[in-house]
Amino acid sequence: MPHFEKIEYQPIPVRELLLEMKNLSELMIDLAYSAALFNDKDLAEDVLVLESRVDTLAYLLDMEIMVAARDPKDAEALIGISIVAAATDKISDAAGDIAAIVTRNIGVHPIVGEIFEKVEERLMQATVKGNSKIVGKKVGALDLAARMGVDIIAIRRNKDWMINPDENERVFLGDVLITRGAPLGIKAFKDLAEGQPSKLEEPT
Amino acid sequence: MPHFEKIEYQPIPVRELLLEMKNLSELMIDLAYSAALFNDKDLAEDVLVLESRVDTLAYLLDMEIMVAARDPKDAEALIGISIVAAATDKISDAAGDIAAIVTRNIGVHPIVGEIFEKVEERLMQATVKGNSKIVGKKVGALDLAARMGVDIIAIRRNKDWMINPDENERVFLGDVLITRGAPLGIKAFKDLAEGQPSKLEEPT
Repeated sequence: MPHFEKIEYQPIPVRELLLEMKNLSELMIDLAYSAALFNDKDLAEDVLVLESRVDTLAYLLDMEIMVAARDPKDAEALIGISIVAAATDKISDAAGDIAAIVTRNIGVHPIVGEIFEKVEERLMQATVKGNSKIVGKKVGALDLAARMGVDIIAIRRNKDWMINPDENERVFLGDVLITRGAPLGIKAFKDLAEGQPSKLEEPT
Repeated sequence: MPHFEKIEYQPIPVRELLLEMKNLSELMIDLAYSAALFNDKDLAEDVLVLESRVDTLAYLLDMEIMVAARDPKDAEALIGISIVAAATDKISDAAGDIAAIVTRNIGVHPIVGEIFEKVEERLMQATVKGNSKIVGKKVGALDLAARMGVDIIAIRRNKDWMINPDENERVFLGDVLITRGAPLGIKAFKDLAEGQPSKLEEPT
């Protein structure tokens, strides 16, 4: 049974709301394809959580726009923002529909698998364990792109998502990292994050 | 006044239909952002043409699935395809909504422009003119990625779209090429395609 929270007006800049909606919706499509391809229920559920987050952002943005528009001229200037926000919401809904294939056990038809396979790079999620060498390190210091061809595209910490984390962001125990890269690299990174020995890991 | 064609059943493999829908819908999002950012009416109209193409593909795919499903077990196996097709259709609709900002003269609010600017690579369309050196050449022989950092992501020839054209595909007079790359590279390529002198063009 989903939990429904009252959406209260919060004075968050429209720019921030729209940027988060756009980034999340694009990430969600990638995540949803990966969830379906790998039949990954956790990832699929993350997509559904994000879908609900985008819905909330959409409500907040609509309220913000209403408050901002004082006259018909303002409304004309702001309608473009409203259209783009609604479009990102549609994209997020589409990602949620694809994720539901996994959460509702619909099964990925071979044709769907084949088409999603064409995504050259793969996504993987890894939960940072206590014995991992990356705990407390900065994203930039891990030098993942050069070492493993891997990019951390999002960090979920508790219920918050950081999309495209800054290189000064530190990795904490329990963080869920979404990485993108070639299959071998992301597998090696998952081992590293989860404190497993890995062939690609540098000697200590 | 739009022209409505009767959608007749055509025996096209589901795989082909779904792959074209997925590729087009993803391309359309990029094209729609670019159309809005550069206030490019031609590009925006292309997006709307593609939206209508995706609608047609969706109808054809739905009919194909109906014909393919002989019993409830088939239907259960095929419903995943139907969900993915509907999701790509939603994404294509979202792209169409963004394109409509341009075709309906809504104007791109600075906040929207700022957010679309964050797309690191740019898209440009160029129509191949008769005096261009690329007429008749193969896409692969142009060696665009190495020379200019430019990638041809789609060719529109008459009313047909080739997405991610093969390197053996030849460029013809009148082709509309959609390219992706850094701003300088795509500008240089546009000059080349349109038969204009360009600094980045190799000496003859």
